[in-house]
Amino acid sequence: MPAVHLHDLPTPALIVDVEAFSHNVDTMAAALPGPRLRPHVKAFKSTALAHELAVAGHRGFCCATVREMAGMAAAGLGEDLLLANETLDVRRLQTLTTASDARLTVAVDSDETVEAALRGGITEVVIDVNVGLPRCGCPPEDAGRLADAARAGGLGVRGVMGYEGHLMTEADDQAGKVEEAMARLLAAHDAVGGDIVSGGGTGTYAVNRWVTEIQAGSYTLMDSHYGATGLPFRQALHLWCTVISADPRGRWAVADGGLKALGMDHGPPSIDGAKVWFVSDEHITFSAVDGAELPGLGDRVRVVPAHVDPTVAYHDQLNVIRDDEVVDVWRVDLRGW
Amino acid sequence: MPAVHLHDLPTPALIVDVEAFSHNVDTMAAALPGPRLRPHVKAFKSTALAHELAVAGHRGFCCATVREMAGMAAAGLGEDLLLANETLDVRRLQTLTTASDARLTVAVDSDETVEAALRGGITEVVIDVNVGLPRCGCPPEDAGRLADAARAGGLGVRGVMGYEGHLMTEADDQAGKVEEAMARLLAAHDAVGGDIVSGGGTGTYAVNRWVTEIQAGSYTLMDSHYGATGLPFRQALHLWCTVISADPRGRWAVADGGLKALGMDHGPPSIDGAKVWFVSDEHITFSAVDGAELPGLGDRVRVVPAHVDPTVAYHDQLNVIRDDEVVDVWRVDLRGW
Repeated sequence: MPAVHLHDLPTPALIVDVEAFSHNVDTMAAALPGPRLRPHVKAFKSTALAHELAVAGHRGFCCATVREMAGMAAAGLGEDLLLANETLDVRRLQTLTTASDARLTVAVDSDETVEAALRGGITEVVIDVNVGLPRCGCPPEDAGRLADAARAGGLGVRGVMGYEGHLMTEADDQAGKVEEAMARLLAAHDAVGGDIVSGGGTGTYAVNRWVTEIQAGSYTLMDSHYGATGLPFRQALHLWCTVISADPRGRWAVADGGLKALGMDHGPPSIDGAKVWFVSDEHITFSAVDGAELPGLGDRVRVVPAHVDPTVAYHDQLNVIRDDEVVDVWRVDLRGW
Repeated sequence: MPAVHLHDLPTPALIVDVEAFSHNVDTMAAALPGPRLRPHVKAFKSTALAHELAVAGHRGFCCATVREMAGMAAAGLGEDLLLANETLDVRRLQTLTTASDARLTVAVDSDETVEAALRGGITEVVIDVNVGLPRCGCPPEDAGRLADAARAGGLGVRGVMGYEGHLMTEADDQAGKVEEAMARLLAAHDAVGGDIVSGGGTGTYAVNRWVTEIQAGSYTLMDSHYGATGLPFRQALHLWCTVISADPRGRWAVADGGLKALGMDHGPPSIDGAKVWFVSDEHITFSAVDGAELPGLGDRVRVVPAHVDPTVAYHDQLNVIRDDEVVDVWRVDLRGW
């Protein structure tokens, strides 16, 4: 690829600082080598990025959608794919299992999802257990019965998963609360059997000692929400914007990234040395803080997203930079469903 | 197209109720016929939908990005396109003006944006005026000078625009506040000249009597934010989801649409008869309210987005339904930048 400088990129553009990214990948691989981590592709939706994690030793992956499963399989990353989510879409599963020779495991939490897996041609499942987050997952006391039903139908049951998502940024006795949640998962595992106890995420990877594998993805790129929790990962993802308008009296400036380039559920993004006033469809209005200089017309600004997953999902590529030079482009090729 | 029933659509899927859509288009066309409305494509990002508005008599359009301008021009909808936004991206403008014989007008609010327009091959501009929203737009008292500079550079100056975005859902004396904002725009117009005084939006279309054309797009599809303001438009857009998990004790259910399918800056979406607890990347957890029945596993639910523009930008198509049958598919072909 010919050398492209960061300042030559049209804006808004998502950029990945490869040094920070590599630091994050190395830090996690040292803490959770190889199969101790099952990276979650939902955070970045890119087979090119996933390939970097496979090179770092993680060969099994989590997905949140059938589309992600299909894309990973098609990219040759299908050694051990876990759909860590429920689906009742038999047709999509049939298309997936017919097209692919990847190892495909899906989570189930009801007789109906077991039935859908069977009809979809799936051969292996994990029992998804509710460990305290009211979302997917069966009650722990129902896990054994569900595993029996799955096995009776002819499915291999590889174990259990349970996501303590409500504890990812818990500041008050996180370890104790994770232990309590994982006690439910381990009780379910006693009744289910199998090799896999899967759970956790970027926010609990260091304290969750009870699972056989951690499901984490955000650590690769990070966001301001996780960044505020003291994790040892660096901010590798930015939205690169241009100042396209500025108040002549210097009270505010306007960057050309907005609601269609940033996941907003965790609140507005951040800009170093600036206070973000509000975000519109294609704009961020901000002022300078603490005597910092307000950028001028045409200046570029690095915007830090508050939530990585829904930010990446708006974009079709990640521009990978080293020393302000674009050294690679990773397609965001796993979007949609 | 073979008949596809709504219940055959894989989920999550964006659906447009064509009866509600037609009601909205007809209602607006009656209030603001033909060139009195310059529909804003940023709300729906679809040339197929824009074509419906052209058929309804609106032949000029607003865009928020150069990508939207290029796509509209390529789709044969370039009779009179206004980039109602600032850009300093000379290369993108050059690509646009070289590739297209559409009528292309861009907003400018600084000497730098005038210069970019000139270098980009643009021949006509409007002066963007700050009417009270601290975002783009020059101070009203600078508009005349900027118009002179643009004309001196060889640009045609077609008039002014000013967006009273801060008043779209104003409940307290909206008409009075819009009049005040528009007084600034009219003062600028006195100094600038030209035929166009462009402004307004879905929330002020009925009270803004001072502009020659209203810039509105959300009215076509609507969202719960605008829906709460008593406008005469119907909710035409829904996210169609499947219940994929449910608490066995009936306390909550989980639908398969989430943060990557819904713009969240205006808050969580709504479901009739339900209280939304929280939204995750691919899930909405909700409970029943007021004695309503909680949907069961496999049931479909209609989710009403809180903000239409960033919701549509996550999707690649709008499934158009009439009486629960899919009668058309409108590609969301104007995404990106």
